[in-house]
Amino acid sequence: MAPKPTPADKFSFGLWTVGWNAQDQFGSATRPWLDPVTSVHKLAELGAAHVTFHDDDVVPFGSDAAERDRILTRFKGALEETGVTVEMVTTNTFSHPIFKDGAFTSNDRRVRRYALRKILRNVDLAAELGADCFVMWGGREGAEYDSAKDLNAAHDRYAEGVDAVAGYIKDKGYGLRIAIEPKPNEPRGDIILPTVGHALGFIAKLEHGDIVGLNPETGHEQMAGLNYTSGLAQALWADKLFHIDLNGQRSIKYDQDLVFGHGDLFSAFATVDLVENGFPSGGPKYDGPRHFDYKPSRTEDFEGVWASAEANIRTYLILKERAQAFRADPEVQEALEAAGVFDLAKPTLAEGETLQDLLNDKSAYEELDVDAVAERGFHFVRLNQLALEHALGAR
Amino acid sequence: MAPKPTPADKFSFGLWTVGWNAQDQFGSATRPWLDPVTSVHKLAELGAAHVTFHDDDVVPFGSDAAERDRILTRFKGALEETGVTVEMVTTNTFSHPIFKDGAFTSNDRRVRRYALRKILRNVDLAAELGADCFVMWGGREGAEYDSAKDLNAAHDRYAEGVDAVAGYIKDKGYGLRIAIEPKPNEPRGDIILPTVGHALGFIAKLEHGDIVGLNPETGHEQMAGLNYTSGLAQALWADKLFHIDLNGQRSIKYDQDLVFGHGDLFSAFATVDLVENGFPSGGPKYDGPRHFDYKPSRTEDFEGVWASAEANIRTYLILKERAQAFRADPEVQEALEAAGVFDLAKPTLAEGETLQDLLNDKSAYEELDVDAVAERGFHFVRLNQLALEHALGAR
Amino acid sequence: MAPKPTPADKFSFGLWTVGWNAQDQFGSATRPWLDPVTSVHKLAELGAAHVTFHDDDVVPFGSDAAERDRILTRFKGALEETGVTVEMVTTNTFSHPIFKDGAFTSNDRRVRRYALRKILRNVDLAAELGADCFVMWGGREGAEYDSAKDLNAAHDRYAEGVDAVAGYIKDKGYGLRIAIEPKPNEPRGDIILPTVGHALGFIAKLEHGDIVGLNPETGHEQMAGLNYTSGLAQALWADKLFHIDLNGQRSIKYDQDLVFGHGDLFSAFATVDLVENGFPSGGPKYDGPRHFDYKPSRTEDFEGVWASAEANIRTYLILKERAQAFRADPEVQEALEAAGVFDLAKPTLAEGETLQDLLNDKSAYEELDVDAVAERGFHFVRLNQLALEHALGAR
Amino acid sequence: MAPKPTPADKFSFGLWTVGWNAQDQFGSATRPWLDPVTSVHKLAELGAAHVTFHDDDVVPFGSDAAERDRILTRFKGALEETGVTVEMVTTNTFSHPIFKDGAFTSNDRRVRRYALRKILRNVDLAAELGADCFVMWGGREGAEYDSAKDLNAAHDRYAEGVDAVAGYIKDKGYGLRIAIEPKPNEPRGDIILPTVGHALGFIAKLEHGDIVGLNPETGHEQMAGLNYTSGLAQALWADKLFHIDLNGQRSIKYDQDLVFGHGDLFSAFATVDLVENGFPSGGPKYDGPRHFDYKPSRTEDFEGVWASAEANIRTYLILKERAQAFRADPEVQEALEAAGVFDLAKPTLAEGETLQDLLNDKSAYEELDVDAVAERGFHFVRLNQLALEHALGAR
Repeated sequence: MAPKPTPADKFSFGLWTVGWNAQDQFGSATRPWLDPVTSVHKLAELGAAHVTFHDDDVVPFGSDAAERDRILTRFKGALEETGVTVEMVTTNTFSHPIFKDGAFTSNDRRVRRYALRKILRNVDLAAELGADCFVMWGGREGAEYDSAKDLNAAHDRYAEGVDAVAGYIKDKGYGLRIAIEPKPNEPRGDIILPTVGHALGFIAKLEHGDIVGLNPETGHEQMAGLNYTSGLAQALWADKLFHIDLNGQRSIKYDQDLVFGHGDLFSAFATVDLVENGFPSGGPKYDGPRHFDYKPSRTEDFEGVWASAEANIRTYLILKERAQAFRADPEVQEALEAAGVFDLAKPTLAEGETLQDLLNDKSAYEELDVDAVAERGFHFVRLNQLALEHALGAR
Repeated sequence: MAPKPTPADKFSFGLWTVGWNAQDQFGSATRPWLDPVTSVHKLAELGAAHVTFHDDDVVPFGSDAAERDRILTRFKGALEETGVTVEMVTTNTFSHPIFKDGAFTSNDRRVRRYALRKILRNVDLAAELGADCFVMWGGREGAEYDSAKDLNAAHDRYAEGVDAVAGYIKDKGYGLRIAIEPKPNEPRGDIILPTVGHALGFIAKLEHGDIVGLNPETGHEQMAGLNYTSGLAQALWADKLFHIDLNGQRSIKYDQDLVFGHGDLFSAFATVDLVENGFPSGGPKYDGPRHFDYKPSRTEDFEGVWASAEANIRTYLILKERAQAFRADPEVQEALEAAGVFDLAKPTLAEGETLQDLLNDKSAYEELDVDAVAERGFHFVRLNQLALEHALGAR
Repeated sequence: MAPKPTPADKFSFGLWTVGWNAQDQFGSATRPWLDPVTSVHKLAELGAAHVTFHDDDVVPFGSDAAERDRILTRFKGALEETGVTVEMVTTNTFSHPIFKDGAFTSNDRRVRRYALRKILRNVDLAAELGADCFVMWGGREGAEYDSAKDLNAAHDRYAEGVDAVAGYIKDKGYGLRIAIEPKPNEPRGDIILPTVGHALGFIAKLEHGDIVGLNPETGHEQMAGLNYTSGLAQALWADKLFHIDLNGQRSIKYDQDLVFGHGDLFSAFATVDLVENGFPSGGPKYDGPRHFDYKPSRTEDFEGVWASAEANIRTYLILKERAQAFRADPEVQEALEAAGVFDLAKPTLAEGETLQDLLNDKSAYEELDVDAVAERGFHFVRLNQLALEHALGAR
Repeated sequence: MAPKPTPADKFSFGLWTVGWNAQDQFGSATRPWLDPVTSVHKLAELGAAHVTFHDDDVVPFGSDAAERDRILTRFKGALEETGVTVEMVTTNTFSHPIFKDGAFTSNDRRVRRYALRKILRNVDLAAELGADCFVMWGGREGAEYDSAKDLNAAHDRYAEGVDAVAGYIKDKGYGLRIAIEPKPNEPRGDIILPTVGHALGFIAKLEHGDIVGLNPETGHEQMAGLNYTSGLAQALWADKLFHIDLNGQRSIKYDQDLVFGHGDLFSAFATVDLVENGFPSGGPKYDGPRHFDYKPSRTEDFEGVWASAEANIRTYLILKERAQAFRADPEVQEALEAAGVFDLAKPTLAEGETLQDLLNDKSAYEELDVDAVAERGFHFVRLNQLALEHALGAR
């Protein structure tokens, strides 16, 4: 049986996930868009503590001020009734045709200015609703063709845009941090900041990079054949894991946005193990919401929509139990030791040892029995099998 | 006809490329290893200005000091005779069984210390031979299994190792910069620092990151489905493009190491266009060697080896001519303008304009005719076709 | 300069290509749908000899009989005026929500019956318009989840459906052949008949397989990392290459539908070389339309739409000239000989030689100088470089 | 706890799996090759009922007749002692340099003849040892370059070769069937017969195709992004699933040959479910050995080798129990029904119904309430979650 979710689990859903009308590249909508208020109530029942949204998910593009107020008042009412809070807000800078060549990096300056305004407006809303994270997915920042984009200028403009927003947040004294969401491609042929790594490299060059971090999405990293958990790990190491988007993807193909665990299941176990238990020798740990960014399949009716939302939670909680048992198993601890996993936390140079000391240490090089060291088995397969059997609940 | 290479073209080859014995994962050697001295002479004839090598390429692993001296003296003789210089040196920390779980991030501290010693020794050699670049490809730094590696500790150790080497270079006053070569996988299931982006993010956290940059390889980025030229562009934007490894790869699969241009040809044109002509609106530019890191196919005899070496040069020079004609074509310049490529170099905020000014600018948002702006065509396909026809020499 | 197209070039376009409204998975339409009559006229001007369409491209889903007649009469008028003919017709069994779980293999029998009716109706139209090819792309035949589909039953139903249509064509005496279009995924997680090979295997089991063949699409094979030209080759070898869909794709990712040549350019050269020049030692040859199935990028206005249509034709014609020069070059013929390309056309057993004769031939095994044979170089890199330089017009 | 294996489980291992010396493309051997006799004894202890091998795995390439006899006698002794049998034999036509351009499709006829002889010799051995399956993996049949291979001739030669071997088997009256093992690439850039589908299409054209079928390998299909279980399903539907190679692969990259389940775990569950339980509505079923073709990681010593062999068995048996529970669960049966999985077994045309009857059936088309049918939810996500929770042992 799957355990029951509680608010302490910090489950969070994008309103655009359950709300999606199931229109895709090759077919029209199979469901109507859902009223966000309905979604809030239903997600609360299922155990979500938080919701998130793009501006346009709640307030249709082009709504006037009065309509916007009316909608937001009703939305806040649903939050109050349910106790659900808004932990993150994001801005849609990809659906409207004006963004067809990007927002911050559009080749049309009018678009860049418009995009900045649209985002700033939404930052105010995020602060007003008490969110602490502001996600930026630059899905249209990119190109299909190498000659279509001056990539030096594009990175300059991207940095200008993100720094402008970050500076605004600081000026206003908002309790918000920005989280960039990388993606390698789709809807553009190549997207700027395609992976966790590229975003980390980008943030390091920002003026206000201290409040800019990452929102890695399972499927986005896997679309580049990369290990999602490894991406989370590097982001943690850089103190930049501000938010996570959990979902499922099966190998390198179009963005599937499956339920968490319905993609690479064993990799999902590794993700939960890292998020819940941290690194084996300690270090930075993620403490934010467990946010699901997936799409209920186009074959589903509303019953299926809610079953899919619940499936994310159930799978996560099952894997959490399994990951805790994995770490608690003395045989696993012994196997981690045998595999040298804890050894890696030991600095290569001893405390106080200089490089010159190492150069003088004949036991490290001149007198090392290289072949003997090389013969050591690392027992990684045994360790992995222990992980697998814990994931499967077979121990 | 392909133009003739000159030393000003800065062509450079790894000695392990032409020298490879053509043994692969599924079959034994089809050629003997080549004597590096032979390679130097032959590459000089073909028009190479430089060579590069791993320690073990020139001095077999385990050679004693006398043997090492003898080999290096003979090797330097060949350099003198031909005028070929060594622009880059790298260290083999992946072939010997001792490195089976990595070098700087091996789960065995004895290996980490041994690796550091092996690398430092080679740094001395690099400096002695007048190289200005020291490449680090951490091909075995990684894992097949998520539980096998504490990735926080691994990044700590990786940083400790690179910083130790960079600090040593500074202490010694060597004129060397370190260039990290990312790769997503193979021979490990997932390699740490899998892409240009991950390495940029890593370098930003180093103590001595000022002399640490990138050596991106065409096929390595393409193995993650990423655009190689885009990777070069972000590295340039970050002032970190220290070296390049040119070769060919056909889609996402095992590391093919084909001749440059024998993979994604139109992407190779874009690479040459960026390397030779820089960004359309100026900015940082690469000025280092054009270094080929490829493998002559296992089906080839030595005649084929040299034909393959020459093919790299010929293709590069043809594409260089084409890229120059592309930029010089007035129709192309007009098309770049029409596509807004130059517009992107304009800051989103005008000089002196504050964010508050933008917020007050109704023409940017409240009064913008969104639909009219959205209707603008960007003419990217026409521009790309111009690039294609220039690449094909069909204009 | 690109050569001018003539009807003898047999260029053909899907009306859904230029007509596409540029709505994608992440954004709304940036152009209106085009009137098919406009497209026919414009494509004729650009040099197309043929057009093709899905039923719904010309007659909106749900039109009544009178509306349908009116639309078709007007459409036929455009064909007559321009001399453009309809060489192929296909049926849309993927856009409407009723097909969300497929058509011939939907888990709902009502849908399967409805799909068969919709297709048969369109077969009549194809025959009436004089087409000789009827394409079937089963884009929704598939699943996201392994348990969702009984794949034995699915193949049974797929075969039942295709055989029903083929039997109907024979009964009616229509001059039509069916061409199945494989695709690995998108919009379904895994599509049934994912590649050229799977479709060939499927057709071999059909009752009316004699009039069922293939319509391979460049990007679809490349989405599985497969070589498109190799797929065409196996289809030709099996006498099943009935139609081709040319376009462009950059590596393994979502279905890009770029202009032909704007994806893997050197692979496009190989495709044109095979289509225009056949196999080096002769054999089956493709003689049908050169059909483009691509999407004008979402960033383009109508000017860009037509520029993109023309780009397909120009690139094809340039590559055709280059491929002809490649084959006519005596150095290439010599290189093909040296590479053993013609040798492969010689049967392994000589004419009249039995297997027992081979077993008795000691020169073939017992006395063969294995090492000497193994040393032979195949000179493939040189041959490939010759192809590359011809493709680039650099010889 | 993992259940204990018995001979009825039909577990089988290639001797080249545990025996591998762990030399890879980028590094030298970390273990010695294992004596096949040792492997037989050890695998027997672990619960294997069968072993398989390439000729060269047991008898080194180039051994003379006396040496060969001596080795085989000793090997048979080990089989007798342990009760282990040889269920499949295969031939190495990829490691020796003579096969660098392939065996049956080498551009050198001497190689083609030599390869045929080497294979026939091994067919005799297979028969002598009582195997009933003869696998052919044409790992070197392919090319890196499009111009290097006449693919029409290549398919002719491939067919000539396979038919020659099949004809020989029939002539000799051996109880053997041939199983072709497809692979998309590595060690060649593109391999001929890259997927299950291509091999099915090829076999359909053979003269002796009745005794030629498939040996699909998990990782090989996944290297093309294809669903392995779907490949097994189409092979079963075509009555061509003669053998299976189980292992693990993580996304599209080099051939990893991980332990079964250590790749895509949930896909492994689907595979076991199909192999053990067959299709939901019945139909052809696989009854052969559960054969593991994997590589113990290069980081492992012999203890790790045996742990990895055992891991294959344990994982398989755990998943088998889970798959049986999945099918036996009444809620699952109800969910399969709700999802229409059983409906798909119903022919689209009723028994005796003609196509004309369907055309006359207004309820199927003219009077169908298309929107009502379209609204049906298929509940696939719920079904998949049930499968997931059974796989995890969480129900």
